[in-house]
Amino acid sequence: MQRIPFAVLQSTIAKALEHSGMPDKHADACATLFAETTRDGVYTHGLNRLKRMVKMIENGSVSPINEPTFEIAHRAIERWNGNKGVGNLSASAMTNRAMELSDEYGIGCVALHNTTHWMRGGTYGWQAAERGYFLICWTNTNPNTPAWGTTASTLGNNPLVMAVPRINPAASSTNPYLGGPHVVLDTSMSQYSYGQLDAHIARGEQLAVPGGFDTEGNLSHDPAAIRTSYRALPIGFWKGSGIAMLLDLFAAMLSGGQSSHEISVDPLYETGLSQMFIAISPRDVAHAEELTRIVDSLIDAIHNAPRSDPSKRARYPGEETLRLREENMRLGVPVDEPAWKFVQSLAD
Amino acid sequence: MQRIPFAVLQSTIAKALEHSGMPDKHADACATLFAETTRDGVYTHGLNRLKRMVKMIENGSVSPINEPTFEIAHRAIERWNGNKGVGNLSASAMTNRAMELSDEYGIGCVALHNTTHWMRGGTYGWQAAERGYFLICWTNTNPNTPAWGTTASTLGNNPLVMAVPRINPAASSTNPYLGGPHVVLDTSMSQYSYGQLDAHIARGEQLAVPGGFDTEGNLSHDPAAIRTSYRALPIGFWKGSGIAMLLDLFAAMLSGGQSSHEISVDPLYETGLSQMFIAISPRDVAHAEELTRIVDSLIDAIHNAPRSDPSKRARYPGEETLRLREENMRLGVPVDEPAWKFVQSLAD
Repeated sequence: MQRIPFAVLQSTIAKALEHSGMPDKHADACATLFAETTRDGVYTHGLNRLKRMVKMIENGSVSPINEPTFEIAHRAIERWNGNKGVGNLSASAMTNRAMELSDEYGIGCVALHNTTHWMRGGTYGWQAAERGYFLICWTNTNPNTPAWGTTASTLGNNPLVMAVPRINPAASSTNPYLGGPHVVLDTSMSQYSYGQLDAHIARGEQLAVPGGFDTEGNLSHDPAAIRTSYRALPIGFWKGSGIAMLLDLFAAMLSGGQSSHEISVDPLYETGLSQMFIAISPRDVAHAEELTRIVDSLIDAIHNAPRSDPSKRARYPGEETLRLREENMRLGVPVDEPAWKFVQSLAD
Repeated sequence: MQRIPFAVLQSTIAKALEHSGMPDKHADACATLFAETTRDGVYTHGLNRLKRMVKMIENGSVSPINEPTFEIAHRAIERWNGNKGVGNLSASAMTNRAMELSDEYGIGCVALHNTTHWMRGGTYGWQAAERGYFLICWTNTNPNTPAWGTTASTLGNNPLVMAVPRINPAASSTNPYLGGPHVVLDTSMSQYSYGQLDAHIARGEQLAVPGGFDTEGNLSHDPAAIRTSYRALPIGFWKGSGIAMLLDLFAAMLSGGQSSHEISVDPLYETGLSQMFIAISPRDVAHAEELTRIVDSLIDAIHNAPRSDPSKRARYPGEETLRLREENMRLGVPVDEPAWKFVQSLAD
């Protein structure tokens, strides 16, 4: 496995994006988000997704230039149009906007339509938590999951992100949350994301639990069979199907955007997505000490619970991220050879 | 099966509650919520739960008199203390409060601590949708679900409710949402609620999909074995475990209340719960026609998708409710004999 210094990874991606027609400032910020995703160990949604984004810039599904524009508001809730701009930059901007609204109103909400793939959802959870905000956000996707009781995919697997900020005991800056061990959940409503299915296929591995249906309609542990059928299994069967449906309805209705069933099945034309960002500023309703006591106590309870496998401590969502981040900054960020070669050739 | 006219069911429950020490006004409203839950076909969380509530009034876990009190706010977000009052009345009041806040700010949020079991979560989704609001709310519960990777229950199964209002085409009142075919999701983060496990046990049925672990730690379809182990399976294995954890953290931290692991395992002492209510008023950011078009189009797509079982049309969450409600109002509300006898004896 090849490891690349973070700064080299970031600057190479930035160059590649510039050569794809992205203005310098966008390219630099977008490359940072891609590089950070890979640095944090979410290999499915970082560098490995770049080729698809470049192709989508080429085919017009993603505009490398456009930015979100404001449409309408009622004080703490706003609707924005993503104008098919760069999905991760737009989601990051909307997260910031929701946080600004929550500074003013305690809670702030942005509904965004006509946007493109936000890549790693956890990005926005970390972004908010690093500044001391709670965040709930979600996106719809192209139709990749059948509603329960049906055999064709009309629902997306609609990733949901929830983030809880925690103070960094070693923080030296004026922002006590910077570098904190935040709790960040980033989970799609299918048992496995398609990125995870691909990773299993690449490693020649079967799934630990059933991840979808084969073309015969049987539950399957075979990632390739599920790729072929495009019938991912919703988490909890009928339950995840219901959650995915409601997430889609909230995002599409409140943003005035498309639902999953209106979006192209072809991932290269997965554009015109709808997203929701809800930020909460706890500063005026809770004391930092109280927040710390409550979250630390729940995490202690989980860490101290008897283990299914005595050698493995249970983890909270996001717990592994800081360790991987430190390791990858120290040793270099691991990259997949073909994805790295592609970016290098584009950057040259 | 015995069927009781709705009005008789409601008034008998009200009398029973009065005789348990609940002031008349509370008893009437609380009885309505219990009777409506059974009328809507959620038999596990209506009449059948009354005996437990009466016992909890007797043992001091539920105060039949106390009401929620306001603690602190930052404009659109408020924190309230439930004072261990009647859980469904308090949740209903907080839903109304979140809607009021959303009238003023577009989105409104109430975090409630020190409350008691809200019974059927869908109650609050219907309540909001009937007045044209979007609602997301959730509660924590006593520890009944192990965090993924552990064998003892530190998490609750933390029911999540999401509601999308729909206009009633036949509405004659000034409120076009009254009686509408709202989309209301009410789902716990375990594959089956304990109420559903009990219902399976009563009917002598095995579960359709694995619902938890037996005392040996094996996944099981046997509801009685899961009741014994108290190890419900989170939906989507590690995924539902993560969602349950984050729901708990948001509710406990923002309300300053207890997390599931701090709540008694004994359902008769399941008190001091934490809940979140987030209402969105779409009126100033979306047109009613646009909202209707988007939700109808998604529902059509699901109804028209090819079926797993040709004889069964896929349903959206809440779709069955209006049919059952109409049937039970026409024929009488079905009641379980022992639960009905208990209420009658208490009402006498």
